[in-house]
Amino acid sequence: MLNPDAAARLRAIVGERNFRDDKEALVAHSYDGTPMLQSLPDGVIYPASTEEVSAIMKVLSEYRIPLVTRGSGTNLCGGTVPALGGVVMVMHRMNRILEVDLENLTATVQPGIITAEFIAHVESLGLFYPPDPSSMRISTIGGNIAECSGGLRGLKYGTTKDYVIGLEAVLADGRILRTGGKLMKDVAGYDLTKLLVGSEGTLAIVTEATLKLIPPPKTKKTMLAMYKDIYGAARTVSSIIEGRIIPATLEILDNPTIRVVSDFAKLGLPEDMAAILIIEQDGDPEAVERDIARITEICMKERADRIEVAASREEAERLLTARRSAFTALARLRPTTILEDATVPRSKIADMVLRINEIARKHGVTIATFGHAGDGNLHPTATTDARDKEEIHRVELAFEEIFEAAIELGGTITGEHGVGVVKAPYLEWKVGEAGMAVMKGIKTAFDPHHLLNPGKVFAKETRKRVVLQHG
Amino acid sequence: MLNPDAAARLRAIVGERNFRDDKEALVAHSYDGTPMLQSLPDGVIYPASTEEVSAIMKVLSEYRIPLVTRGSGTNLCGGTVPALGGVVMVMHRMNRILEVDLENLTATVQPGIITAEFIAHVESLGLFYPPDPSSMRISTIGGNIAECSGGLRGLKYGTTKDYVIGLEAVLADGRILRTGGKLMKDVAGYDLTKLLVGSEGTLAIVTEATLKLIPPPKTKKTMLAMYKDIYGAARTVSSIIEGRIIPATLEILDNPTIRVVSDFAKLGLPEDMAAILIIEQDGDPEAVERDIARITEICMKERADRIEVAASREEAERLLTARRSAFTALARLRPTTILEDATVPRSKIADMVLRINEIARKHGVTIATFGHAGDGNLHPTATTDARDKEEIHRVELAFEEIFEAAIELGGTITGEHGVGVVKAPYLEWKVGEAGMAVMKGIKTAFDPHHLLNPGKVFAKETRKRVVLQHG
Repeated sequence: MLNPDAAARLRAIVGERNFRDDKEALVAHSYDGTPMLQSLPDGVIYPASTEEVSAIMKVLSEYRIPLVTRGSGTNLCGGTVPALGGVVMVMHRMNRILEVDLENLTATVQPGIITAEFIAHVESLGLFYPPDPSSMRISTIGGNIAECSGGLRGLKYGTTKDYVIGLEAVLADGRILRTGGKLMKDVAGYDLTKLLVGSEGTLAIVTEATLKLIPPPKTKKTMLAMYKDIYGAARTVSSIIEGRIIPATLEILDNPTIRVVSDFAKLGLPEDMAAILIIEQDGDPEAVERDIARITEICMKERADRIEVAASREEAERLLTARRSAFTALARLRPTTILEDATVPRSKIADMVLRINEIARKHGVTIATFGHAGDGNLHPTATTDARDKEEIHRVELAFEEIFEAAIELGGTITGEHGVGVVKAPYLEWKVGEAGMAVMKGIKTAFDPHHLLNPGKVFAKETRKRVVLQHG
Repeated sequence: MLNPDAAARLRAIVGERNFRDDKEALVAHSYDGTPMLQSLPDGVIYPASTEEVSAIMKVLSEYRIPLVTRGSGTNLCGGTVPALGGVVMVMHRMNRILEVDLENLTATVQPGIITAEFIAHVESLGLFYPPDPSSMRISTIGGNIAECSGGLRGLKYGTTKDYVIGLEAVLADGRILRTGGKLMKDVAGYDLTKLLVGSEGTLAIVTEATLKLIPPPKTKKTMLAMYKDIYGAARTVSSIIEGRIIPATLEILDNPTIRVVSDFAKLGLPEDMAAILIIEQDGDPEAVERDIARITEICMKERADRIEVAASREEAERLLTARRSAFTALARLRPTTILEDATVPRSKIADMVLRINEIARKHGVTIATFGHAGDGNLHPTATTDARDKEEIHRVELAFEEIFEAAIELGGTITGEHGVGVVKAPYLEWKVGEAGMAVMKGIKTAFDPHHLLNPGKVFAKETRKRVVLQHG
């Protein structure tokens, strides 16, 4: 329970209605998009301005009360679960688009704006904000910044980090920090803007962001290519890139995913295929035509069994459905769905998919894999049942080996979902002892009493690395 | 003088020939590209490997000896002057391209490679590394990473930061840190890669970098537009961007620069023009033709007095000469040339150029301005004489007011040159008290004894902000 004096002061800052500690509010903010994680906060607060956030942090820091900032809580790493209790700060009231600057091609927004609403507004002005995480109809820009969200357009356009050029953020002690600006270049001191993006709410509370916008592509074309041999699909990915073509989207579905998706979305996909690639190119019409023609040639050369190029936007949408429904289709198979995002250099995708399948077999668990092939960012997804402790244990062992395999192949434990609680025990595998030491130092420099999102990123203990058994 | 035991141990690490403390070596490494700054080191060391760098740092950290890492020392902020003595570490022996990975479109290099040599190698393989600082024929990739160098192609392609995706770096205590990898996405913990880029050698010593490469544009077209009214030039810049065109290059020369350049390079530029824009677009041939045609229309609408579109690559080179020779032309006017890089939102360029001219007039100093109009990154350049203390004082006052004006207009004190010694007293104007506190904390987290490039970025004292007198 929250210290009553602190609670009274918090109420005075935001008003009676915007601080809650009733059971309903606490339970509603005890979990997020991550399965099997729940922890009750002691209070929930809804600030309306940077000044309120600053005043709140002064109180919390005086009483040493932990704070978890959240938007819609769609993250998949336990990033917004109040692991150590304290106050959950919900940013939904700070949801305004403050400005779209057409001369500088920037937008300034509050963190609580829903990503898809922001994108729609920007597109209505004839501009383009590329980061498009799958959660974008629910998730907020603030959440996207916290996790450095990616999406289907990441290969060509990059991720959230590439579009955040200025931030206003409140430090743990209530001081207000301003970084960057409407500036395409700024090297005045360390790059705090990029450091805060992806810092998972552990360094500061973002209260305003200046985002870079770009001109939209003039047209877009979508195609599917299906392979009986997964290496054919993987070679296609490499050949496209080696052929100096960077598609807007280059996604892969493996065989377990194809079978589930085909059944779910009634797409009639051939279930004997080892992999399907979903490819989209955008840009000027001539360039798009040329690229799609060359990609088709590459697919044929790599022995694709079937190639479909969408003739219309509607047909393109139908092809994209295969990818977009992957998670939903998998989620209805069993009570619990665990979606991970181990990432490898793009040349290692086939190796990684096969390694995942082998690991799943070894532990007797079901893992389907889909994801951003062009980025090497795969989503091995386990369908399981949280109530079956023994099975969950095997799933955990499998993911442990998957992270290990990703690192062995020159990859990382997370490409776009973040570390949170879930991957904290594995972080040292990627960044090493020196990396952990430096990151802990940065954390302490921003937040000396470790009040901001405690229990995330840094685990009490690093898992022992498993020994992989191949073959 | 260096502690003799430390010196002996350093000699043992790199061999007799690769540690020097003779007068000649010390003097040769006492200055860099920045005018009026000199400070003798106590030793100069030339490591050949990461292991040697690590061993050197263990010795220096034991004896608390400061270290300045440098490549060719072309920086303009005093970034590689050994302000507090100690050892200068020259990276020229670590100058290999370790790998170009055609499947992943990455290159892995040592820091001492000359940027232009690296670019030439990459281009010979049909790939593209966009960052092109003016110093690129002399400067090293390591130096570019330390300062986050920009260049003429920054508007469309970004700066060094956008292409560094993995680093190996040695910490002050000799530990080896590895960040990122051949990965387009990696959110495992804080983004140490982007934090190290632009950290001016104050956090760690970069010993290896993995760089992202992209497919090269198929073609390129160059044009000039000349204006009697500087606001016409500025409106053109804004209209191009508002018109959803992002040119590869969009440079401006103001009247003082035009006059000097025309005379120097015998270009016959009309000396009554207030500004010249140099515009280049690259990409697919149809898109380039269309963009150049639309840009030409915009220039005409904004009342350009003369427009020249290069018909050939040779003519394009002639037009680019106007921009490329700006610094050299200005440098021969007076004994000392001070080139700064105050940066503003691109919509504020005309205001900023006029403000610079007004400030120069007020202090009776000569300042010509050119730079990256599309980025808002201007290079006000004072031609003066270091021996004339009274004039230098006036130049300093003028730059102080220029930095102040940039910040007033929503800009920054440095867009691509870095803070170093020269702009350290002004850093707090941009980042505020909270920003300074956080940056100092980060510095201490990496380098607790402040051995790496001490005296840079953080000034003993922040200058009092001047009060601008307008009109």
